[in-house]
Amino acid sequence: MDHSRQILTRFSWVLAVIFTLAHQAFAGTPLPSWNDGPARQAIIDFVKRTTDPASPDFVPAEARIATFDNDGTLWVEHPMYTQLAFALDRVRALAPQHPEWKATQPFKAVLENDLKSLAAAGDKGLMELVMTTHAGMSTAEFEAEVKSWFTTARHPRFKRPYTEMTYLPMVELLQYLRENGFKTFIVSGGGIEFMRPMTQSVYGIPPEQVIGSSIKTQFEMKDGKPVLMRLPEINFIDDKTGKPVGINMYIGRRPIAAFGNSDGDLQMLQWTAAGDGARLMMLVFHDDATREYAYGPAGGQPASPFGTFSQATMDEAKKSGWTVISMKNDWSRIFDFDE
Amino acid sequence: MDHSRQILTRFSWVLAVIFTLAHQAFAGTPLPSWNDGPARQAIIDFVKRTTDPASPDFVPAEARIATFDNDGTLWVEHPMYTQLAFALDRVRALAPQHPEWKATQPFKAVLENDLKSLAAAGDKGLMELVMTTHAGMSTAEFEAEVKSWFTTARHPRFKRPYTEMTYLPMVELLQYLRENGFKTFIVSGGGIEFMRPMTQSVYGIPPEQVIGSSIKTQFEMKDGKPVLMRLPEINFIDDKTGKPVGINMYIGRRPIAAFGNSDGDLQMLQWTAAGDGARLMMLVFHDDATREYAYGPAGGQPASPFGTFSQATMDEAKKSGWTVISMKNDWSRIFDFDE
Repeated sequence: MDHSRQILTRFSWVLAVIFTLAHQAFAGTPLPSWNDGPARQAIIDFVKRTTDPASPDFVPAEARIATFDNDGTLWVEHPMYTQLAFALDRVRALAPQHPEWKATQPFKAVLENDLKSLAAAGDKGLMELVMTTHAGMSTAEFEAEVKSWFTTARHPRFKRPYTEMTYLPMVELLQYLRENGFKTFIVSGGGIEFMRPMTQSVYGIPPEQVIGSSIKTQFEMKDGKPVLMRLPEINFIDDKTGKPVGINMYIGRRPIAAFGNSDGDLQMLQWTAAGDGARLMMLVFHDDATREYAYGPAGGQPASPFGTFSQATMDEAKKSGWTVISMKNDWSRIFDFDE
Repeated sequence: MDHSRQILTRFSWVLAVIFTLAHQAFAGTPLPSWNDGPARQAIIDFVKRTTDPASPDFVPAEARIATFDNDGTLWVEHPMYTQLAFALDRVRALAPQHPEWKATQPFKAVLENDLKSLAAAGDKGLMELVMTTHAGMSTAEFEAEVKSWFTTARHPRFKRPYTEMTYLPMVELLQYLRENGFKTFIVSGGGIEFMRPMTQSVYGIPPEQVIGSSIKTQFEMKDGKPVLMRLPEINFIDDKTGKPVGINMYIGRRPIAAFGNSDGDLQMLQWTAAGDGARLMMLVFHDDATREYAYGPAGGQPASPFGTFSQATMDEAKKSGWTVISMKNDWSRIFDFDE
């Protein structure tokens, strides 16, 4: 390092100290939409322990990796996953070019709004819907479809764009962690290319920090221009045991904090918890039918095909000292549009 | 945004301006190991055009994505890929537990240093070596093996640890781009988990910005602890048409700059070039047998099984206006240990 560099390095340290002091002086109370309670306290304690250089649990900034499930953790997943709503809308939009769908399941069920037959089609039927509506086009074309849909589609109960159906306390948490040097990632069972068009503007998370399920793509030359075509073939399922696999594949190191809301997040929390040093594992529990939804079946709440939170997962959380967030008790506001 | 936030935001702007001015005043000449010439000039012009807010080619910081091949672009790939040297050393280390290898190809060839038979085993033989030496253990165990190997193994010609066999001008380039707000990624045909243990210390690139080939992993519980086991099955080949696929899968947006050195990088450069706005595509050409190696077969140099740079790729580079870096003419120093 030459002399001018040394001066610069020292100078930038001084600036960093000034900035930190200024930040502490001016920043408001963190996590304003969280009620005072064990969940909020667990977050603040964890951040203090891992970011204070004098703490025995101090973690250098580059290792402050926090992973977040998306559906049911950062935004609403009822009455159905947002991506499923997108797939159903795509079926309706494409139906005029596919007259045969009027007589073929699971498409017939979608066109007739026959949710019972749709449910009966099971995972295989859902997969067929996803492949039909998500493949056979370039990545650029799919991105344009998703972006366009987000501008027009509305949540059936709240009559808001899906990009407003995010949980304000979680958005505050993402920001609070980043202000404390954490790098925030999404690790979702949802489609990676369905999420990426909105994660930056909605969560402040860039596309390269989004991990999700994916279908295969193939490099092709079309009219002398390279394109990536989306193939009707599964590439990776980022759910359950797939979440630690995805974390290892994309991030290459273990998170120190992980946030989920369902049985699909169990292995991500186990994987995060198994590392050395301070750890924070949290599960959002949907127990507020008035302001959002209530489902489990943990706690005797109604079961749900989307975002199952089983009693076994609740028991493991209790046993392992993970924090369960009660939407009803821990959050003073749920949505940004709440009073 | 409340009032204290506004003050903070303004204050941090002032600091950013001071920092930038200080940086410009104190920073030395960029890219000191590059000779003055078209390659160095192309880099500096590109950075100026994309980072000056007054430039019509200005690119916001978050979209300044630069991707780098590793073998032959950032470090030496002769007389063989570093990862192959690792695999051969692993075969030798594991041989006592595998007496049958003395009579089985391709292991016999490795143990007898019979490079002719090894070459005759072809891709299938190499794949068998990689699967045998890279799978059947946890990700943590493999990482420990790789780290340990890097501390003891030496390059056969230069007698240096492989982590010193990096090209100083390229390390300067990585740093120069990052100082100008670029996010630097590795996009290599090499194994992702072979590279990640060294990329931070050697290139300043964190594991989550390393993309490479991979084998499948599987989440398992062992003695109540979760582990990821490495399976002898290909997950992804990050080479040729796989590079744009990998870029899309991991980064989710198109680079504005890409750097390679062989036919395996062609599609990455095509994919990068096909985006709108300012673009920088460069290929390192190995034409310095004295200080490093000379191979092609472009330019009539000897062909090589590692890092083929064909005349067709050279022709496409010329036709497309990509910059070919002559190691001999463009680099005043190649290694940090050079005089």
